Formats: sequence, structure tokens, C-alpha cells
Amino acid sequence: MDVAILKEYLSSCRELVTEQIRSIVPQNRYSSVLYNLMLDYPLRLGKGFRPALCIASSRAQGGRLQDVLRTAAVLELYHNAFLVHDDVEDGSHLRRGQPTLHAQYGVPIAVNVGDAIFALCLKPLLDNTESLGLGKALAVLDTVARMALESAEGQAVELDWVRHSDWSQPDRAYCHMSFKKTCWYTFIAPLRIGGIIAGASPRRMARLKRFGSLIGVAFQIQDDILNLIADVQLYGKEIGGDLWEGKHTVMLLHMMRSLPSSERTEAQRILQMPRETKSVENVEFLFGLMRSCESVAYASRLARRLAEKALAVLDADEERIEPSVHRDFLVAMVDYVVTRNN
Amino acid sequence: MDVAILKEYLSSCRELVTEQIRSIVPQNRYSSVLYNLMLDYPLRLGKGFRPALCIASSRAQGGRLQDVLRTAAVLELYHNAFLVHDDVEDGSHLRRGQPTLHAQYGVPIAVNVGDAIFALCLKPLLDNTESLGLGKALAVLDTVARMALESAEGQAVELDWVRHSDWSQPDRAYCHMSFKKTCWYTFIAPLRIGGIIAGASPRRMARLKRFGSLIGVAFQIQDDILNLIADVQLYGKEIGGDLWEGKHTVMLLHMMRSLPSSERTEAQRILQMPRETKSVENVEFLFGLMRSCESVAYASRLARRLAEKALAVLDADEERIEPSVHRDFLVAMVDYVVTRNN
Repeated sequence: MDVAILKEYLSSCRELVTEQIRSIVPQNRYSSVLYNLMLDYPLRLGKGFRPALCIASSRAQGGRLQDVLRTAAVLELYHNAFLVHDDVEDGSHLRRGQPTLHAQYGVPIAVNVGDAIFALCLKPLLDNTESLGLGKALAVLDTVARMALESAEGQAVELDWVRHSDWSQPDRAYCHMSFKKTCWYTFIAPLRIGGIIAGASPRRMARLKRFGSLIGVAFQIQDDILNLIADVQLYGKEIGGDLWEGKHTVMLLHMMRSLPSSERTEAQRILQMPRETKSVENVEFLFGLMRSCESVAYASRLARRLAEKALAVLDADEERIEPSVHRDFLVAMVDYVVTRNN
Repeated sequence: MDVAILKEYLSSCRELVTEQIRSIVPQNRYSSVLYNLMLDYPLRLGKGFRPALCIASSRAQGGRLQDVLRTAAVLELYHNAFLVHDDVEDGSHLRRGQPTLHAQYGVPIAVNVGDAIFALCLKPLLDNTESLGLGKALAVLDTVARMALESAEGQAVELDWVRHSDWSQPDRAYCHMSFKKTCWYTFIAPLRIGGIIAGASPRRMARLKRFGSLIGVAFQIQDDILNLIADVQLYGKEIGGDLWEGKHTVMLLHMMRSLPSSERTEAQRILQMPRETKSVENVEFLFGLMRSCESVAYASRLARRLAEKALAVLDADEERIEPSVHRDFLVAMVDYVVTRNN
């Protein structure tokens, strides 16, 4: 499957999912302001990886579109709630090419909008008991509960690292944090929920988790690379935001390990400064060090190695998923996450 | 039941609930920092109204303590997550006599801690399917979903009023906002969840809702009064915070209606100022106007009228709840919410 067909798959899922989201988020309620803001990020039309992965996983394993669609839409809503709070937590200015919600309406309203979306996600998942049967509905809810907690744990560790100005972790620590922060809610939960709805075997479910972990960390590394070097028009977020925030990335950890100690001390000094006291020159200086260490190339190689392993997991003989356009999409996603430019 | 016995009832519930909370919040996880912060507000030992109301409602209607305890603890956890976010949204400095979470650790960590507590609440509610049976477990989850959404809607309307500097609402609008923001999650959900677990009839459930609405608005009015005139040592929060924030209260709406137009214009001008640009003199001036309008006495009368109606609902003959210490607690709470001084 080439990239054009992958994008077509994503866009046809997105269309269906957006329609579902509009039906989940009620209109003309007591607080119309709230409900309009709840639709703000979802209608900015992100890439829609999570619902597409959920749909593809389910259909590749014999599930029906109508059984998975509503739950896939809930995953996209959940993702958007997480983004609203994440943007507050990171002090980000841009999301999908527009000002972040808190930049427009203030932190109080943004925190509440995120909470409201989380609250709204529960009802359609409870309704699954009728459409999917009890066992599957409860397994989906259980996966969502696990996903929410894993994300919060990963997020907590990342925030804690920033707070304590500690940039001495090995790549392994970064990968584990990403596994928590990203893999669960971007890959593992969507893939496994698709599997649950299709009635996948426990062994298949375990492989979906392994696949999701590998593609997920590869995805996060590429995401961090794009944060440094993307074209802002394509990317829709500010470039270099992670350096302003002092966030831990494979590139930063690699750079800190590679620098001679005097430069490392100076880099540490700048990284420790709060975002608002850093100057453009400070951040340019960090960029320069990173280039001299070739840290982006290093991270890119790591992402590709993980992507290859992910493919091998998907291709393993035992209980192999039968060929279909949906399986092709999962395969194509592996390459896409490490080569995408936005 | 006199106040001393009511407080004893609250404190014995609190002890049991705190033990449950400690067992729900895991220790020695990947992010120990996160889990310690998740316990911060719960271990500050609030009054524990919500779990006590849930337990009393269930036991008064024939339910067993062991069936309701874990769910009551989840309600208290849920309340604490809401408080963590509410303190961020209101920019509050003090909570239960100590600095708020975001004042100590910053907004990013506080937002994430709230999200993590919400995430953690789902699992014990799913476990109810085994201990309570499917029907009751799903009805509890449904009530929690409704409660979360009602709170977010109420909160949204309140934030929207502050944002648009609109202080012309009638008391009715305030009462409806409180019904959404406070009644659902402080009274209606705990009482009805207690009822669900005890197997209450639909008619009884409807009365619990009516009772919860009346006592809930009375509670919120008294809460707003205490925000103005409490003893900070007892209250544990800053005094007058609502005036600094320009929050809508019965007192403020009454004052704005009662003032001659020149003073109303001046009050409006001060209320519109962002919290950080208001001076102590500005807030003192508003206090003075409020005293001259006798707005606190007005609000207090309204709260007492609502409390009387709540008692009448509880005492109505049809499907009356049999006398017991648990029913006595519910009755005593009605008086307590409008007479408490902290």
C-alpha cells in the first residue's frame, strides 16, 4: 500500500468517525458554549490514526464496521480531550494550525472542556453492552481504563523529569516513558479494542500489544524529530517546542551523552531555564549542539529499527492475520510513522 | 440527631472510606510521584459528605455496608479529582488549610493528577459487575457518567458568566447552575447510587433526586456564604475568594439587583477586573455594598427555605424510608448544610 492509499484509508475513516462524533456530542444542551468547544479540536480534523487503527485492526480480524465505529469515535474524542489538557500542561500555542484552546479561552475553560469530553466518553462505551454484548463491552471499558491510567503515568514521569531538570536517562528510560505515554493510547488500546470487538484470541491480543509497543515508540521518536525539524505549515504546531520546554527526547538524551562536559554543563544550564526566560539564541544554541552530535540521525535510526521489529511481529507465522486492505493499512502504517513529515 | 452525632457518623464513614481509598490507589507503581500526589487531597481529610451520603442512603434503604463502601470511596476520589481541577480553574490558593496542588507543583502536574484520579475511578466501578451483579454495576456507571457531565456543564456555565462579566441573572439561573455544578455530584449521585445498590424502587429514586436537588442548592448557597464570612482557620480556604474571582452567588446577584445604578456601575467595573488587578480596597468596597444590601441574610433565608422543602420531600408519606440511624443522618444533614460554619 503506498502513502496515497494509506491517506485515503485514513480519510475515509475520518469521515465516518467525524459523523459519529457529531452524534455523540449533543447540541442545544444547557451549555451550548461547552458543547461547541468540545467539538473544536475534533473538527480541526487531525490525522485520525487512533480510530483508523481500531477500525483496521477489527476489520482485518473479521469484525464488522458497524460494530467498531462508535467505539473508534470514542477513542478519537478521548484523544482530543487528552490533547486539550496536554496543550495546557505543555503551554503549547498551536494545535493543528490554530491557537490552542487555552490560548483562546484561558486555562480554566480548557481544563473543563477536557473533563467534559472525558465524561462524555463513558456513555457510548456503556451502550456497547447492548450492541456488542456484555463480555466485549466490559473488556473495552477495561482497556480504556488501563489506557487512561497508563497515559497519566507516562505524562507524570515526563513532567517530573522536566521539573527536576534531569537529562541523564538512558534511551531505555525514554522508551519506557513513551510506552506509557504514547503506545497505550495511540496504538495498543485502539488495536486491542479492535481485536476485542472482532473476537480475537488471547494470543492474537498479546501480539497486538507487542506490535503496538514497537510501532508506538517509533511513532513517538518521529514525532519528537518533527517537533525539531518539520515545516510549521505542514506540522501545525510550533517548531522546537520541546527544546523550549526542556522535554526529554532521544535526540536530547543522545546529545547530552555525546557532548564534552563543558558544553553539557552549558546545555544543562539553558535547559533548566523556565520556558519564558529562555531566549531565541539559547534555543538556537541547543539546536546547534544537537546538529553537531548528529542526534536526529541517531534517533531516526532507532525509530527505523523499532519499525522493522514491529513488522516482524505482524508477519510472524503463528495466527497470522489474513491478507486484506485492512491488514495492508496496518503494514503501511509501520513505514508511514517513521517517514511522515507532518 | 444532634451535630455531635452527625459528625461522629461522618468521621466513622471517613475512616472506612480512607482505608478503601488507600487500597484503590496503588503504591510502588512506575510513577510513585504521581500516586503520592493522587493521595494528597484525599489524605487532607475533607468532611466526606459524598461517601457518607452514599453509605447512609444505601443502608437506610436496607443495603449492606460491604456492598456500598468501595463505590462510596470512588465518589470521594472523584470529588478530589474535581477539586484539584476546580482549584486550577479558580486560581485558588488554599484547600483544606494547605496550599492547593497547583500552587505547590504547578498547573501541568495538577491537571495530570486530576486526570489520573478520574482514570483510576473506572476500574473499581467495573469490578462492581462481579460484586453487585451486572444491572446494579451498569446503573452505577451510568449515574457516574451523568454526574461527570452535569458537573462539567454547570462549571462551564459558571466560567462563562465570569468570562462575560454578566451579573444580571435571576436567582433561578443561579439555582439551575448549582443544580448542575453541585447537586448532581454532591447529593443526587451519591444518594441515588446508594439507592441503586440497595435496590430502591424507581419512585424512591425519583424522590432521592428531588431531595438531592433541594439540599444541594441550599448547601451551595451556604458554601458561598462561608466563602464570604467564615473563619479562615475553620474554613481552610481563602475568605472572599469568590469576590476576587467575580463568581456568581445569590448574594452578588441580590446586591446587583438592589443597588442604585451608580453604585451598580462601579461594582460592575470592579467585578470585571481580572483577579490579579483587583486591590484589597476594591474587594472591601464590594463587601461594604453587600453588607448595605443585607444580601447574606437574604441568601441565608433562601437556603433555609430550600432546606425545609428538602425535609418535606424526605418526610412525605409515600414509600417513606423507615426510621434508622442512617435515615436520621440524612435528616440531620439538611439542617447541618445550612447552619455549618466550615
